[in-house]
Amino acid sequence: VTPPGRAALMSALGPGREFDRVRRIAAALGARAAGLGDDCALLAAGGGTLAASTDVSVEGVHFRLEWLSLEEIGWRAAAAALSDLAAEGAEADAVLIALSVPAAAGDDDVVAVMSGAGAAATEAGARVAGGDLSAGSGWSLAVTALGWVADPVTRAGARAGDGLWVTGRLGAPRAALEAWRRGAVPGEDARRAFARPLPRLHAGRWLARHGARAMIDLSDGLGADAAHVAAASGVAAELELDLVPVAPVAVAEAVRLGVPPEQFAAESGEEYELLVALPAGFAVEDVRAFESVCGLTLTRVGQAGEGGGVHARLGGVPVALSGFDHFASHRR
Amino acid sequence: VTPPGRAALMSALGPGREFDRVRRIAAALGARAAGLGDDCALLAAGGGTLAASTDVSVEGVHFRLEWLSLEEIGWRAAAAALSDLAAEGAEADAVLIALSVPAAAGDDDVVAVMSGAGAAATEAGARVAGGDLSAGSGWSLAVTALGWVADPVTRAGARAGDGLWVTGRLGAPRAALEAWRRGAVPGEDARRAFARPLPRLHAGRWLARHGARAMIDLSDGLGADAAHVAAASGVAAELELDLVPVAPVAVAEAVRLGVPPEQFAAESGEEYELLVALPAGFAVEDVRAFESVCGLTLTRVGQAGEGGGVHARLGGVPVALSGFDHFASHRR
Repeated sequence: VTPPGRAALMSALGPGREFDRVRRIAAALGARAAGLGDDCALLAAGGGTLAASTDVSVEGVHFRLEWLSLEEIGWRAAAAALSDLAAEGAEADAVLIALSVPAAAGDDDVVAVMSGAGAAATEAGARVAGGDLSAGSGWSLAVTALGWVADPVTRAGARAGDGLWVTGRLGAPRAALEAWRRGAVPGEDARRAFARPLPRLHAGRWLARHGARAMIDLSDGLGADAAHVAAASGVAAELELDLVPVAPVAVAEAVRLGVPPEQFAAESGEEYELLVALPAGFAVEDVRAFESVCGLTLTRVGQAGEGGGVHARLGGVPVALSGFDHFASHRR
Repeated sequence: VTPPGRAALMSALGPGREFDRVRRIAAALGARAAGLGDDCALLAAGGGTLAASTDVSVEGVHFRLEWLSLEEIGWRAAAAALSDLAAEGAEADAVLIALSVPAAAGDDDVVAVMSGAGAAATEAGARVAGGDLSAGSGWSLAVTALGWVADPVTRAGARAGDGLWVTGRLGAPRAALEAWRRGAVPGEDARRAFARPLPRLHAGRWLARHGARAMIDLSDGLGADAAHVAAASGVAAELELDLVPVAPVAVAEAVRLGVPPEQFAAESGEEYELLVALPAGFAVEDVRAFESVCGLTLTRVGQAGEGGGVHARLGGVPVALSGFDHFASHRR
């Protein structure tokens, strides 16, 4: 994989405060950085490619102790890093876990977090191969996932005319977050989607083998992640929100907020489903094969077009989608 | 590299509270973990081996903002992870940086930290290939270093009769820390050793090619790291402290504390020199070749013997060495 040039890199990162910062970092690092801005770093490795992704989960930013058990904190953090491998079409091999531990935590607490991370790794076919422990003012985990991929699927390969598809149903993690925010207890389906997300490694590999041109996970939400694909690929992302598959548990929270459920789902971050650009010829029998092999729905939600940016419509009316930004305590 | 069995792993970690925790984690993870307890995770990769190490640096634990510039914070964090590659005899390829940023920090601050990390990577022949940015309550960096190695040198290969050697001179980082702790300004040599350590990648590869049987960096200090090698290799580490090469800047701080300079240096953590076990036949001309190629001293400080643990003597008298533990706010 040839690293993109600096100019290409800087226009490929998409919108948002985090991405403004990454752009500034890339400019400052110049030739010292390469390949920033995709889900994974891709390193040539004796005939294959190593896919590596690091993902940080911070108490009070990504989760609260009132919401999750320590095992779930570990699971979520590992799943988030493994999800980036899924979005390259890679096979997971190992995770490394750098864990900062608050002073009040005991050994059982540390073991609980690491057991959760280890369980997520096992579920994804990976093992815990290393890590680092440190004191810290709160819980913080930086998980690095390492995997292997013959032909990585980056964010940059979508072409005008490709269909845009999503795996699974969206909105459940946001339903859990919205319930916690108003002091309620989320339903079990919503809670599980937030607390124990399943990285879509099997689905990502299937899609990579069946023509995927660009892929990304939905950790920033469908609207924001479609913008990343659009920016990296040099296309417009035309989203038909009426087609967005909404998790049943998301509907009630959307109604409560007065937001159409499809928009609620398209703005839900912390999703670990995949957004994938597939050639226009991807057929109904391909969808059936995917759903039968992967045990997940695959739904067309729009197409790539000429131009740039995200153009979302709901019931024929343009909708401006907001995204999910870990630097903002509010939604932008 | 065959991952060690669980029992072997658990006895191989050496002493200290951090290692007690790692032992408990390894016991809880069982088969889900493999290879914990060496400097790097080692993954088979199409004919070669990937060496991967993750290292976390936390404000208030590993550094204070009054001590270091933001560039130096980035440099140190990257150097610490790269140093683990040096200790395997690996060549550095890339670093991934997960950075947590306090709310008060601006974009220039983020760029400064990342530029420092990028400069350390460049110095080591690596590039910044990815990362993650998050809000956090203070600065925290988890750096993952990735490199390649044909024949990794673990901690586990020392045999009774091998010589134990160290690169460079020890004690300068501790001299800086002790000066800061008493409210003084460290001398420039001490400050630089703490703020801009140079991972010994070139030296590590040279030693790997010239018979190194076991290697480790001195981030926990000579006494503690010799204990790790002894535990992993199933040997005793017999240290002749009179031979320890002491950095000139360390002498005054040692005298001030009333500690013999050699002991002060052997208890100095945050060192990024290497401890290496070399066969007894390693000769004076080999030392000259190393020093000429690597621009560093190489000094014999003891030998591996039958038994276990660390046995240090100074002036013929046994000395109990203390180590450096990031979980303790004090030295243990």
